[in-house]
Amino acid sequence: MRISTRDDGLTRRMPAHFRQWPPSGGGVSPYDDCTTLEVSYLTDEETLRQYVPEEFSITRPLVMVMYEKCSGVRWMGGSQYSLVTVSVPVQYMAGKQPIDGIYHLVIWEDKCEPILGGREEAGMPKIFADIPEYRRNGDSLSVNASHEGRTFFEMELVLGPAFSGDALAGINADNGRVVQFGWRYIPRVGPYPGPALSEATYYPVDNTFSSAYACSGTVTWTVPARRQHPTQCDIIAALAALPVNDYLSGSFRKGTSTMRMDLARSLP
Amino acid sequence: MRISTRDDGLTRRMPAHFRQWPPSGGGVSPYDDCTTLEVSYLTDEETLRQYVPEEFSITRPLVMVMYEKCSGVRWMGGSQYSLVTVSVPVQYMAGKQPIDGIYHLVIWEDKCEPILGGREEAGMPKIFADIPEYRRNGDSLSVNASHEGRTFFEMELVLGPAFSGDALAGINADNGRVVQFGWRYIPRVGPYPGPALSEATYYPVDNTFSSAYACSGTVTWTVPARRQHPTQCDIIAALAALPVNDYLSGSFRKGTSTMRMDLARSLP
Amino acid sequence: MRISTRDDGLTRRMPAHFRQWPPSGGGVSPYDDCTTLEVSYLTDEETLRQYVPEEFSITRPLVMVMYEKCSGVRWMGGSQYSLVTVSVPVQYMAGKQPIDGIYHLVIWEDKCEPILGGREEAGMPKIFADIPEYRRNGDSLSVNASHEGRTFFEMELVLGPAFSGDALAGINADNGRVVQFGWRYIPRVGPYPGPALSEATYYPVDNTFSSAYACSGTVTWTVPARRQHPTQCDIIAALAALPVNDYLSGSFRKGTSTMRMDLARSLP
Amino acid sequence: MRISTRDDGLTRRMPAHFRQWPPSGGGVSPYDDCTTLEVSYLTDEETLRQYVPEEFSITRPLVMVMYEKCSGVRWMGGSQYSLVTVSVPVQYMAGKQPIDGIYHLVIWEDKCEPILGGREEAGMPKIFADIPEYRRNGDSLSVNASHEGRTFFEMELVLGPAFSGDALAGINADNGRVVQFGWRYIPRVGPYPGPALSEATYYPVDNTFSSAYACSGTVTWTVPARRQHPTQCDIIAALAALPVNDYLSGSFRKGTSTMRMDLARSLP
Repeated sequence: MRISTRDDGLTRRMPAHFRQWPPSGGGVSPYDDCTTLEVSYLTDEETLRQYVPEEFSITRPLVMVMYEKCSGVRWMGGSQYSLVTVSVPVQYMAGKQPIDGIYHLVIWEDKCEPILGGREEAGMPKIFADIPEYRRNGDSLSVNASHEGRTFFEMELVLGPAFSGDALAGINADNGRVVQFGWRYIPRVGPYPGPALSEATYYPVDNTFSSAYACSGTVTWTVPARRQHPTQCDIIAALAALPVNDYLSGSFRKGTSTMRMDLARSLP
Repeated sequence: MRISTRDDGLTRRMPAHFRQWPPSGGGVSPYDDCTTLEVSYLTDEETLRQYVPEEFSITRPLVMVMYEKCSGVRWMGGSQYSLVTVSVPVQYMAGKQPIDGIYHLVIWEDKCEPILGGREEAGMPKIFADIPEYRRNGDSLSVNASHEGRTFFEMELVLGPAFSGDALAGINADNGRVVQFGWRYIPRVGPYPGPALSEATYYPVDNTFSSAYACSGTVTWTVPARRQHPTQCDIIAALAALPVNDYLSGSFRKGTSTMRMDLARSLP
Repeated sequence: MRISTRDDGLTRRMPAHFRQWPPSGGGVSPYDDCTTLEVSYLTDEETLRQYVPEEFSITRPLVMVMYEKCSGVRWMGGSQYSLVTVSVPVQYMAGKQPIDGIYHLVIWEDKCEPILGGREEAGMPKIFADIPEYRRNGDSLSVNASHEGRTFFEMELVLGPAFSGDALAGINADNGRVVQFGWRYIPRVGPYPGPALSEATYYPVDNTFSSAYACSGTVTWTVPARRQHPTQCDIIAALAALPVNDYLSGSFRKGTSTMRMDLARSLP
Repeated sequence: MRISTRDDGLTRRMPAHFRQWPPSGGGVSPYDDCTTLEVSYLTDEETLRQYVPEEFSITRPLVMVMYEKCSGVRWMGGSQYSLVTVSVPVQYMAGKQPIDGIYHLVIWEDKCEPILGGREEAGMPKIFADIPEYRRNGDSLSVNASHEGRTFFEMELVLGPAFSGDALAGINADNGRVVQFGWRYIPRVGPYPGPALSEATYYPVDNTFSSAYACSGTVTWTVPARRQHPTQCDIIAALAALPVNDYLSGSFRKGTSTMRMDLARSLP
């Protein structure tokens, strides 16, 4: 059995001796039933700047927080998972043509499999959390994330008016595309510092929303003690330390998404 | 913020803009309370050969199946996780000095965090499964693994006599070291086939067993339909197709383990 | 503190020293967002008869199997749970006026709280199972239930045509009411046989379906060994032993439900 | 099929048409491998008095908090569950002979099945919580409980010296028996206030500890908002409002337990 470092034309995933296939030319991955809750807040740009690689310029000092429940995920046999993303609007200077998108500071997901794919195949900064399904009680929407029984994230939204037809058409324009940026970093094996692989990544996702409502709401971060959550406490502490200068209007949306791995690439 | 491809002397993990530290020279990671249940069976070497990279020679056509409950995991703040490994005894020819160890065909774990570290930092072929804690009912020991409510692995053991003092000392000799081999494979981003990184890896683990009992038992694989478990059905099918020619004696052991990332490295 | 056996006018639940309130006259409990998948099969009436108390006559020897995902459950703060019911159409002779409804053979639910309420307050035969959210992959719908990693129930449906407006109005007529019957049985404390309480119960639920599709499909029971699932293996074995003589058309529906505890009562 | 209210000599559980057996004369239920972490604090007796039925006198105004991981549970096929109990030392005046024991204010458990049995068969005030396995990190022991991702209970202990042989023999004397008292309360069906069944209960458990260490530590209650946890917020609020006047020494113990349902009974 050969797991060649030369390009033998196969696509592989670990365990690479079991998982290999001819490239389909594809990578277009439909998610048939998605619900998002999101809200954003303006923060201090200098503090935020520390966490965004210098290859990206911050287009607005905004912390965008989104919860999403993804169902009907085709590549998972129609199964589902949930996620919480924290992102910043940025611009990447690629040659002469700048690209606008969002740089993900962190993505929590509640299933391991999309985390593995996202990190290894696209440099998405995914890590694990328990994310109970969002609750709706009348006009109140509520979400949280926790680690081994300890809450670290809460989002509370109040439902406002439905988007107008024009507003809905607006967020669906241009395939409802969101350009995601990440940074793929694979370390050297063993006690040696430094990367085996380190690069900016580009990974678009298209969306078609069938309904959308404005929301207002808040986000609460609870920083765990290091002994409670050694591997993520610094991440949560960094997010909690970003000042909330002003909340913008959020939203509650339903629709479909399409992952565009066929368009993904490493950035020069 | 700079996530350099040059070696700036820091150790990083994704999200690399949040997680970075000076190398400690360490990587010695204690697991204070471990329980293993294992059994092996002889199989057909030619079939097995398909799944072991040609850099390794198979020293015995043996499928080694081990369940482990790891508690008191220091790097997780004293938390715990469970795993099921399927491995083959192999020899790697590194320069003039061959190295004996086990090549992991697959490692299922029930928490995401050790999966991420094992894959990205050491090429361990870890994937996710639900692994309920082992059951003990008198002399019967029982373990299973499942995916979204569908059982795919079962191990049933009957407890036999305790190891003699000499036998226990034997498995603890030379730090009870087990040399683990894996294959780290990181694909190119996007629809392009082939690896961005592909290499054999070496990652030892030391063990001190405080008690051990002989066991006899069996392993049952249930292959899921592709639609039920698209990403792992081929792995389980490959394992289920390895003939069980003869079961060897297994064991039930308790003790401590020490991960030796300080000794881990990519193999030439 | 007094937990009186005399009627002091308060409604209580265990722990009764903490949970007590004046009766609201209510018990009307809305479930804002429900999805059901169901299919039925004709079976042998004599075999079925063994499991239906003699106070009820079987109106058709039908095993009705339904999965339901309940979201927006108001009494749970807008949270959700899932269930699988196995029921038989029956008639209860109450005085001169017979009541038609369904007798639940068993109800599996994946959260403990509705199980407690259903059993203690209404004699619903609820027990626990892990019930992953239903999967939809194109026209295929799939559900399973498991216990500690061992699958015991699977339902596979293929989506057919949407209900006509008339057909939808039909299932919504008369408040879409389903009369549920159960048998509340509380044993004596200690090693003594026999009940402290034993009675038939009546508990209606109203439904408003916003969409419905015909389905065809099948149910598969896998009987666990006694040692694997001591408390439910007999239940699953009894269900698995009911012959499947003919499958009837099933359905996939979405809508709202209202529990009518305000109408519930013990039957004479 | 007959689920008689007359005593036909069978023992039944809901679903009573499926679950029935001749009384074994038994009810002695071994738990082969148990670990407890416990700590107590003195509180205000008048506040505490509100929650203890007047049939019991409080022997010391003590809030006893115990976490237990139970493994090798025979009646569950060798499986395991975890629990957190909050109890008060009391005396019950039964005829001329007073009985000393503990009155459980609440018992959280992380599996549904022992909750059902405990409530219905013995009046134990059991309710559900997620209870991750205790963590041990050197001399630090840590436990929490949560509901749908929201922490409400935390216990932190520091390990002290091992019990002397005499001290260990002391806690094992008289079968290490703990007499548990509860209050079994089953409401009337429907909107009517008042009980169908309401009585004090007696349920002993025997223990044999193989090791024990003194501990010091603390308990933290976090009261959820009503909308977050409607059914338990009042319970947690009542516990949180009991003042912590003085912590007593706690313990960390390992051993076996035997449930003595053969001795359980309703109290007159």
